[in-house]
Amino acid sequence: MKNLALLTDYYQLTMMNGYLKNNIHNENVVFDMFFRKNPCDNGYTIIAGIEQMIEYIENLRFTEDDLEYVKGLGFDNLFIDELRNFKFSGTIYGVKEGSIMFPGEPIIRVKSTCFEAQLVETAILNIINFQSLIATKASRICNAAKGDSVFEFGLRRAQAPDAGIYGARAAVIGGCSSSSNVLAGKMFNIPVVGTQAHSWIQTFDTELESFRAYARTYPDKCMLLVDTYDAIQSGIPNAITVFKELRESGYEPIGIRIDSGDLAYLSKQARKMLDKAGFQKAIIVASSDLDEDTIDDLKIQGAAINGWGVGTNLITSKNCPALGGVYKLAAIEKNNTLIPKIKISENPEKITNPGYKKVVRIYDKYSGKALADLIMLEDEVIEKNKPLTIFHPVYTWKKKVVNNYEVREMLIPIFVDGDKIYESQSVKEIQTYVNKELSTLWPEYLRLNKPQVYKVDLSQKLWTLKQQMVNQYKESGEF
Amino acid sequence: MKNLALLTDYYQLTMMNGYLKNNIHNENVVFDMFFRKNPCDNGYTIIAGIEQMIEYIENLRFTEDDLEYVKGLGFDNLFIDELRNFKFSGTIYGVKEGSIMFPGEPIIRVKSTCFEAQLVETAILNIINFQSLIATKASRICNAAKGDSVFEFGLRRAQAPDAGIYGARAAVIGGCSSSSNVLAGKMFNIPVVGTQAHSWIQTFDTELESFRAYARTYPDKCMLLVDTYDAIQSGIPNAITVFKELRESGYEPIGIRIDSGDLAYLSKQARKMLDKAGFQKAIIVASSDLDEDTIDDLKIQGAAINGWGVGTNLITSKNCPALGGVYKLAAIEKNNTLIPKIKISENPEKITNPGYKKVVRIYDKYSGKALADLIMLEDEVIEKNKPLTIFHPVYTWKKKVVNNYEVREMLIPIFVDGDKIYESQSVKEIQTYVNKELSTLWPEYLRLNKPQVYKVDLSQKLWTLKQQMVNQYKESGEF
Repeated sequence: MKNLALLTDYYQLTMMNGYLKNNIHNENVVFDMFFRKNPCDNGYTIIAGIEQMIEYIENLRFTEDDLEYVKGLGFDNLFIDELRNFKFSGTIYGVKEGSIMFPGEPIIRVKSTCFEAQLVETAILNIINFQSLIATKASRICNAAKGDSVFEFGLRRAQAPDAGIYGARAAVIGGCSSSSNVLAGKMFNIPVVGTQAHSWIQTFDTELESFRAYARTYPDKCMLLVDTYDAIQSGIPNAITVFKELRESGYEPIGIRIDSGDLAYLSKQARKMLDKAGFQKAIIVASSDLDEDTIDDLKIQGAAINGWGVGTNLITSKNCPALGGVYKLAAIEKNNTLIPKIKISENPEKITNPGYKKVVRIYDKYSGKALADLIMLEDEVIEKNKPLTIFHPVYTWKKKVVNNYEVREMLIPIFVDGDKIYESQSVKEIQTYVNKELSTLWPEYLRLNKPQVYKVDLSQKLWTLKQQMVNQYKESGEF
Repeated sequence: MKNLALLTDYYQLTMMNGYLKNNIHNENVVFDMFFRKNPCDNGYTIIAGIEQMIEYIENLRFTEDDLEYVKGLGFDNLFIDELRNFKFSGTIYGVKEGSIMFPGEPIIRVKSTCFEAQLVETAILNIINFQSLIATKASRICNAAKGDSVFEFGLRRAQAPDAGIYGARAAVIGGCSSSSNVLAGKMFNIPVVGTQAHSWIQTFDTELESFRAYARTYPDKCMLLVDTYDAIQSGIPNAITVFKELRESGYEPIGIRIDSGDLAYLSKQARKMLDKAGFQKAIIVASSDLDEDTIDDLKIQGAAINGWGVGTNLITSKNCPALGGVYKLAAIEKNNTLIPKIKISENPEKITNPGYKKVVRIYDKYSGKALADLIMLEDEVIEKNKPLTIFHPVYTWKKKVVNNYEVREMLIPIFVDGDKIYESQSVKEIQTYVNKELSTLWPEYLRLNKPQVYKVDLSQKLWTLKQQMVNQYKESGEF
């Protein structure tokens, strides 16, 4: 991983230097990372990028080259020396990578000196925001594909190399079976796929010749792109000719790919033609500006497509290209006590939840399904054998009493006093965990359009603290 | 720059191996990169990323580690040995970085063996697509800001680290004055800016105390964020108190930043309050989910804003997060002759322009303004002293005779036979060049909404070749 120490906003440096000059740089603070809205109006968000956040924190050192640059910006030696000795020494709790989370919930909780906590804000947001966005988008697309394989094909339209690389990783976490991105395949041990482009077909004098050349080179994995000239008139008949030749040599073809035109019509025609020729097992892969809505529509129209190659719309999450994760101050330590902090806003949704908090998920003991999440203060304990009353944080008359439940703490230690505690997992393991997580959600929350809103409530104690702090600010008029 | 040899689609490898096995890997081909649509319905596209494309090509070598991975995918030693000896030996022409280009025009033209040309497709598209997108989006935003400074603030929402880094570079190319991204500042020698976040204000017991602490640390560059609690009731009055204290110590403040609320109302109130207190020169910077349309609207409403911090909407080009650049085969060399190739499509806009081509821009000799672009075959010559007839490639009766014109070739050599020829420029120099380019366009093409469409015509010779090839394919029915 490249040196990312300077991958931060300049104001983090001016604040860090300011804390140092005001001699408060070693005061401990708590910051929460959370987001206010699921991407693409989805019912949930898959959190990804935890592994890269860990790599970033572990490798966080300033080189002499970095320091020289910072000095050139006008900072003094006192500050440069602090940076030279920088090593992250704080404690970070966060969700296990691949966890399903909801708006307003802390997903990363940083407790460290304000000097350290400020520096890491930008990179943590950058890393988690993007990978969680793409994992969630991939989950939506795989949801629409209803069990068919989905291939991530977006590298050429990704927003710079890293977006292609980490986007491929996130796409597989979110449910894709593989990627076209060879470097991502190498880095994360994920399957890579691909066969030939239109340029292959055009390089030969005729389409038939190009198909034969491909079949000669890859007789055991022959997949042919049939739409370079005319799929129905030329591509599919030529593919069938070559498939028959292959079969005579003792090989079975894999199938065909269609990359343009009306995919419902063409795939149904192709299916008939392939079946009639005796290639019932040849698969049909489609690619061409696909997203979850188009896949859903094509499914409804009975498209005979077995696999979906998705590019731009997945790798950029085109209709919603940013997850707006934020990183907000929740508490400051004074005399070994954490003093809750709140950010007030005229917009009630933007008022933060104060204090040192945790998130618990309440599961129904019999069905194993998730019932609701509770954001609580860290020191609160749920007495698991007693009925639990939860209530809506705004419409507080919306109450519910829960019995026979299990409780799970969502935030686990990632770094404790600067040491990595988190147990890393392979991308494949994370994908499996995502599927397990999804299986605990009622289908109402998984719906592609207008899903039911999952309940995220505050504990009574946190709710009361928040009300008190808001009222105090509004009444005092002093800041 | 990290090792990007494997930053390619897997199908490039399967095709390269296929060319090798069919012994045509050393056949020369010509590929054009072009795009079909300007991003954000803009009237033009600024091409950026040329420098990073060059770095990629120059550093293109496979490590033993890469080769081991590729071998593990099932490729044989013959292919691995070809990759081991890989060094790009072809010729690439392209536009000078920062050039203004239009749909359909070749912006990069690669002539090399099909083995090489195929490998580099994906990374070239990835690099040029993204930076051109962001440079163009930045140009739109700066256009709306009408000469005010625009600051790129998007790193935390960028699509992974590289998008933040290269996006900042592209944003400055497109017109931004600076970025918050420190690493981009170091890498590209672009100005970095920033002061403090809400967390700075909250870390102190009162807002006033936080402002004083900042002013003590940075008396000569005091810029204060005034909306943590209530801009009108608290933030601006506290800022004025501190500005007066600063002035008594012999310093003049820089100004204030507003990051929420109604920016038109708040900025006008702030202006009045600052002016009344004697700080007519204190500037007002706004940030808060801004884009070109919001800036345009705020300007219309007389917002008293001097500088604009733009984040998510710029760094992701949120309403249009991909430039759909493609890379299409244009010719194949047989017996030292380039045979034009065409890709047919039912969609007339998707039929490619065949042959080894160039792009010329025709300027009016007196005004210096660009009149039209012509895509021509490489060997065509314009006789500059004769009237030039240009015509619309679809509505061919739309003709125009041009006199008193200058001709400029847009494609210049970047690599010739594997050697870099291009003269690199600093980001600042590229930004200056962009401004010069923009000054040659009539304002009709620069309009933010529904700009006039700039003329991109084909030469008579190219037009005739294309018609012949389309007819030939359609009549023969054989592929």
